[in-house]
Amino acid sequence: MKNIKLTIEYEGTNYAGWQRQDNVITIQEKLEGALEILTNEKIKLIGSGRTDGGVHALAQVANFITNATIPGERYKYALKFLLPDDITIMDSEEVDIGFNSRFSATKKTYKYIVYNGELPKALYRNFSYYVPYDIDIDKMIDASKYLIGTHDFASFMAAKSSVKSTIRTIYSISIEKEKENELIIFKIEGNSFLRNMVRIIVGTLLEIGFGKLNVEDLCKIISEKNRELAGHTAPPQGLFLEKVFY
Amino acid sequence: MKNIKLTIEYEGTNYAGWQRQDNVITIQEKLEGALEILTNEKIKLIGSGRTDGGVHALAQVANFITNATIPGERYKYALKFLLPDDITIMDSEEVDIGFNSRFSATKKTYKYIVYNGELPKALYRNFSYYVPYDIDIDKMIDASKYLIGTHDFASFMAAKSSVKSTIRTIYSISIEKEKENELIIFKIEGNSFLRNMVRIIVGTLLEIGFGKLNVEDLCKIISEKNRELAGHTAPPQGLFLEKVFY
Repeated sequence: MKNIKLTIEYEGTNYAGWQRQDNVITIQEKLEGALEILTNEKIKLIGSGRTDGGVHALAQVANFITNATIPGERYKYALKFLLPDDITIMDSEEVDIGFNSRFSATKKTYKYIVYNGELPKALYRNFSYYVPYDIDIDKMIDASKYLIGTHDFASFMAAKSSVKSTIRTIYSISIEKEKENELIIFKIEGNSFLRNMVRIIVGTLLEIGFGKLNVEDLCKIISEKNRELAGHTAPPQGLFLEKVFY
Repeated sequence: MKNIKLTIEYEGTNYAGWQRQDNVITIQEKLEGALEILTNEKIKLIGSGRTDGGVHALAQVANFITNATIPGERYKYALKFLLPDDITIMDSEEVDIGFNSRFSATKKTYKYIVYNGELPKALYRNFSYYVPYDIDIDKMIDASKYLIGTHDFASFMAAKSSVKSTIRTIYSISIEKEKENELIIFKIEGNSFLRNMVRIIVGTLLEIGFGKLNVEDLCKIISEKNRELAGHTAPPQGLFLEKVFY
């Protein structure tokens, strides 16, 4: 019995997200289908976490247990002939049988790209959130400091999600301008994230950047634990799962 | 009567290229359709040149003559509601009635991206040429110098193209590695280009980088004026029309 760990890049545009669901096409389903052809077994792939439809991954991690004797490092070569070209394997290896992509993860980093130009751009459309308004980046950077640390992030979770605990730790948030200030890149590092948490944080920080909310509002949003107080959920196409740490 | 100049960004993936043709979807047709709605006239759009199916533009230029009284700078705002999201207008302005996007152009720059990683990458698939082989970049840089200047580029033109002259001038070629050497970026600047010329130049330089051809072969390819001697045509998705100068 082998435990195989895959590191996966994908463009989420054409998928209803990571997790297998009825009647829609998902990344998990495509990967499991390809692995079933290779191993001749029913495969249950464990991802480090779900990503929503339209969200991308630069290095999603997933693992599966198999009786197939294929060496771990062979999967990355074999899978390229069996996967659609918007799902690619960056690495594959055999790992300790106790490794679990989800529960063994200690830290994750996400990137969120806002395109802050005046007019929409064809090449950014699936990879950024087009926001043609003035954004005060210094206000966002100041406010972001209040999110660092261990907090109850219930206000930053998609409504109707059910989880045991809404307490999470954010280690860092960086916000930088790139490409002649046309892009604003958010990088968020935390131990684990609630459903839509990064997108709601970005939406809320943007509303601070617009001057619609201020730092006091942000403190109240955190303490009240009420999704309705936080800002909008930034759309999925700007979000990239960047790295999962173990 | 006004002459309106448009600067256009597009992703070529879903189009059969710039130029209007029967039975396929083209960028020219999408733009003319949108302009006809705005102006209530039949519009003939003049592009700076054609791009093939799958080729992208960061700043294609096109112009059209119209009796509509719409101010030039309004087109860029109005067109965003009428175009598909993979064709976007970066700028629009009224120009001198004698301006012609094709014949007034004095210089063009193209960018070609080779992805030189071992395994394919989902996010690069529509925006680069995946070449998982060793490439000697110094050999390519040396060889590229022989292409600079005014030459008969008949060997670097798609077979069966018909043009009056195959003499063109290349002002510069740069070849650089980026993103931890995973990308090789070619930038080519010239007065005008033959059909597939940039893609055949890149294909030929890559064969020099592989060690399949050498500098003497390149000189022979140029002097013999025979398409069959040059290297392969690099695929369209790595090519970007970067800028048109007037």
